[in-house]
Amino acid sequence: MALSLADYAKEREELISLDRALRADHRREPLSPTEVLADKVIRDVRMAEASSIWTAEYPSIPHPFPGMEFLTGRSVIVQTKLFEILIQMPKGALLHAHLDATVNVPFLLDLALKQPAIHVRSPVPLDSSNLKSTLPEFQALPQHVAENVISLTDAQYEPNTWVPIKQARETFGTKLGGPEGFDQWVTGALTIDPSEAYGTHNTVTKIWQKFLSTFRVSNPIIRYVPIFKEYVREFLKSSIADGISYVEPRVNFVYKGIIAADGTHLPHRELLLIFDQVLNEIKRDMKQQGREDDFIGARIIYSTVRFITPDELYWFLEDCIALKKEFPHLIAAFDLVGDENVSHPLKYYAEPLLKFHEMQKKAGVDEIPFIFHAGETLGDGTEADMNLYDAILLGTKRIGHGFSLIKHPKLIEMCKEREIAVEVCPISNEILRLTSSMHMHPLPALLNHGVRVALCSDDPAVFGSMGLTYDFFQVLAASEITGIIQLGEMAKDSIKFSTLDPPEKQRALDAWKVRWEKFLKYAVSTGTEYIWEE
Amino acid sequence: MALSLADYAKEREELISLDRALRADHRREPLSPTEVLADKVIRDVRMAEASSIWTAEYPSIPHPFPGMEFLTGRSVIVQTKLFEILIQMPKGALLHAHLDATVNVPFLLDLALKQPAIHVRSPVPLDSSNLKSTLPEFQALPQHVAENVISLTDAQYEPNTWVPIKQARETFGTKLGGPEGFDQWVTGALTIDPSEAYGTHNTVTKIWQKFLSTFRVSNPIIRYVPIFKEYVREFLKSSIADGISYVEPRVNFVYKGIIAADGTHLPHRELLLIFDQVLNEIKRDMKQQGREDDFIGARIIYSTVRFITPDELYWFLEDCIALKKEFPHLIAAFDLVGDENVSHPLKYYAEPLLKFHEMQKKAGVDEIPFIFHAGETLGDGTEADMNLYDAILLGTKRIGHGFSLIKHPKLIEMCKEREIAVEVCPISNEILRLTSSMHMHPLPALLNHGVRVALCSDDPAVFGSMGLTYDFFQVLAASEITGIIQLGEMAKDSIKFSTLDPPEKQRALDAWKVRWEKFLKYAVSTGTEYIWEE
Repeated sequence: MALSLADYAKEREELISLDRALRADHRREPLSPTEVLADKVIRDVRMAEASSIWTAEYPSIPHPFPGMEFLTGRSVIVQTKLFEILIQMPKGALLHAHLDATVNVPFLLDLALKQPAIHVRSPVPLDSSNLKSTLPEFQALPQHVAENVISLTDAQYEPNTWVPIKQARETFGTKLGGPEGFDQWVTGALTIDPSEAYGTHNTVTKIWQKFLSTFRVSNPIIRYVPIFKEYVREFLKSSIADGISYVEPRVNFVYKGIIAADGTHLPHRELLLIFDQVLNEIKRDMKQQGREDDFIGARIIYSTVRFITPDELYWFLEDCIALKKEFPHLIAAFDLVGDENVSHPLKYYAEPLLKFHEMQKKAGVDEIPFIFHAGETLGDGTEADMNLYDAILLGTKRIGHGFSLIKHPKLIEMCKEREIAVEVCPISNEILRLTSSMHMHPLPALLNHGVRVALCSDDPAVFGSMGLTYDFFQVLAASEITGIIQLGEMAKDSIKFSTLDPPEKQRALDAWKVRWEKFLKYAVSTGTEYIWEE
Repeated sequence: MALSLADYAKEREELISLDRALRADHRREPLSPTEVLADKVIRDVRMAEASSIWTAEYPSIPHPFPGMEFLTGRSVIVQTKLFEILIQMPKGALLHAHLDATVNVPFLLDLALKQPAIHVRSPVPLDSSNLKSTLPEFQALPQHVAENVISLTDAQYEPNTWVPIKQARETFGTKLGGPEGFDQWVTGALTIDPSEAYGTHNTVTKIWQKFLSTFRVSNPIIRYVPIFKEYVREFLKSSIADGISYVEPRVNFVYKGIIAADGTHLPHRELLLIFDQVLNEIKRDMKQQGREDDFIGARIIYSTVRFITPDELYWFLEDCIALKKEFPHLIAAFDLVGDENVSHPLKYYAEPLLKFHEMQKKAGVDEIPFIFHAGETLGDGTEADMNLYDAILLGTKRIGHGFSLIKHPKLIEMCKEREIAVEVCPISNEILRLTSSMHMHPLPALLNHGVRVALCSDDPAVFGSMGLTYDFFQVLAASEITGIIQLGEMAKDSIKFSTLDPPEKQRALDAWKVRWEKFLKYAVSTGTEYIWEE
């Protein structure tokens, strides 16, 4: 006898449930009535827009679709109701972002223009033929260095002569767009544009060259103390404005110091003092506004780079321990950064990394965990892919990216057993050419296999994806399974898998839940007109 | 005490072994000395070429790399030693290919030109502005239909007038390239070119429109009996030449018949009679050459399309059963084909499909298994993705494509328990825009999760990827883990998971092993100069 249709339908439902049983949105307690309703409303908004705004014709977008390449699709994303709703979502913690790339470029440029010490130079007089390929170089210098200098765009400009930034901007040649042309030139050097990501630099290797060059350009500006203070303030304020209530930025300590207003080099502890001061000011402000629950705080993941020698790494491990001793509340973890595909693998540093805990014990500090970047690669068995083995064996608390984790059944099992969450950076992975669109991203597979995930922005200033709303949008837009409930679970997990102390963590979770309920009600009310009755 | 470096290295090796334990190349018996050596030689060839031929500059290839987009990279692939070696590899069985797209276009065009019955027409007089966007339409017609007609490229050409193909070619306007211009026009209509796959049609939806149009153009040629015979012969001969020893093509029976030389429509059984006759001729030829072990045979997967109604499906199920009764040795399985993203899901056909086995029993035929296309999609929870649930619940013997299977932990488990192999079509998936390059393909993840895989070509005539060598190449080129041993295991699995009877299967496996040893020795001898000593 053939199975009846009804029995088949039942068997099918059971199989789907079994298959999805490991997902965070299936493992949780039953949904509240508000959650049920908001989930439906947001799915209906998504469905309505998939066949309206995403099927319209756009002169500059040959193939629009939800979850498409971010740099091309951004202008459509910001017009959607889905995006409008997600802006209001409480995002939880931001667990993976490089501090140097967290403040939007117009704001940073504005900060630089206000500082007479900031100078700029070019290796050639700029003209229309070399503008796009020439990077500006910035530096904080005593003001008397540059007097009576001519425009960067003047044919007589002496290569590599420093010009005060304001003067450089004001005298920027009208043929190259005048002051706005200057802004565009600098912005182009600090961000990735679609023609680079999807055309000229359309491989992982090439886009990383462009990507790293943005840091070389911005670094001397950001690490100038009068700017650094305002930079950190803006990072925290804009994160709060996006619904992020806690941040754990990676700070790259390979630069041995920051530059004071008087030009002297200050050691790493001064950076932390400034960070702490701004952080406390923001917390005080939030408290004064009665919003202390909207921002729990910030801690730093001490990072250095993957092109030093193992011997050099000892210096950074000691430096990290010393900073942890002085700022136990600020140092959250240790990491190594850089393009895994071309830099040293974790294995290369095994000896110093294996000794890190002993070094800490000797110094009498609290344990500093590793939170390693690993598997940010398309490689299958390459050193970058194999970094996942080392990250986990070395006891990483979370995995930065873990793009290739889906290839590793045993490691997936270990991540679940050891409660290692993955910091998934959807837009970063796409712009850095690991995936062509969200639809090819391994995130849905990781979620279904039960891996815990926190969505992260990585380098939002370079990608033009400020906050976490864009990343949440891309994930939501590209799936029929993931709804607002799964996004909520990932937001919760970002708090759960942070390095916050248990009481702070609980406070953050409690505060998040209050905001979540409020958000769901807002979503329902603003999305009512989209409700689709079957 | 920190772990010693030696202990760490040991722990690491053990973890890697555990993580890879489910792979076919790890589960098998120990390698023979020849296998060890050939594996190394081929890895060394791959490594040498990754940093030589793949890093050279090519005017027409902006970003060359091993495993890159096939249509752009093909001209480099054919220059590699790796490709030269793989041509000689015994590929096992071809389990997923649509018969209509298995013979290369120049050969098909040549067959058509030899048949005076074949006519061609165009909906407009062709000129340089409409050539690329206008499809030729072919038909076998009595010869007297078209007399004294003018060129398709003549401004006076009466739209939709039939012209004998030979005359159409000879009179093709010199401005449009003359006879070669005609060949290019037809070839363009029967194949996908890089500018379409990676430019104008760079989404799954758009490329499927182009893809399906190639079948509409070629079908009336292929289904003309005098051509069909030669077509089947060429399919089998070229498969044998590529090292394939058994084929299980899908034949689309939605076309109710084939066209005899006299213009009459012949029913499905005539198609099978011809297929059988050609098959027997080839087998006899092979035997005469003493090569009977190089070709075990061919069986057909009866297919119809996913846009019919469930009621209409009954007719095809009955038709399939009737053909199975008459040709038990030829009908291997039943399938439904078409773009899963836009056609009816398997669930829509649940009622007839659930009854199929009972219908077979009633008719007294051997059991015809389902071998369904499922999950050939980027969707996450779309109907196409959900087809995987139905395919498995309905008892599919293998899964065609299963591109989205990696998202389904429970289904992966069931595939392993129930020994359901996946027919993975690497080049097809890439050209049809499911993945941008082999590096983003889920195959490595499936292999590591222990899913059994047969590599397949799908529609090699449309993709210009004749045989299986190109697909094997792409898989080998894009991984550091997969070597020739894993390719060998997939070749073996293609035989194991075929529908061959146990004795035939054993014979095929035994014959494959003899050829495998011979191939490995060839690989070692031809690749010796590439051996890299550490």
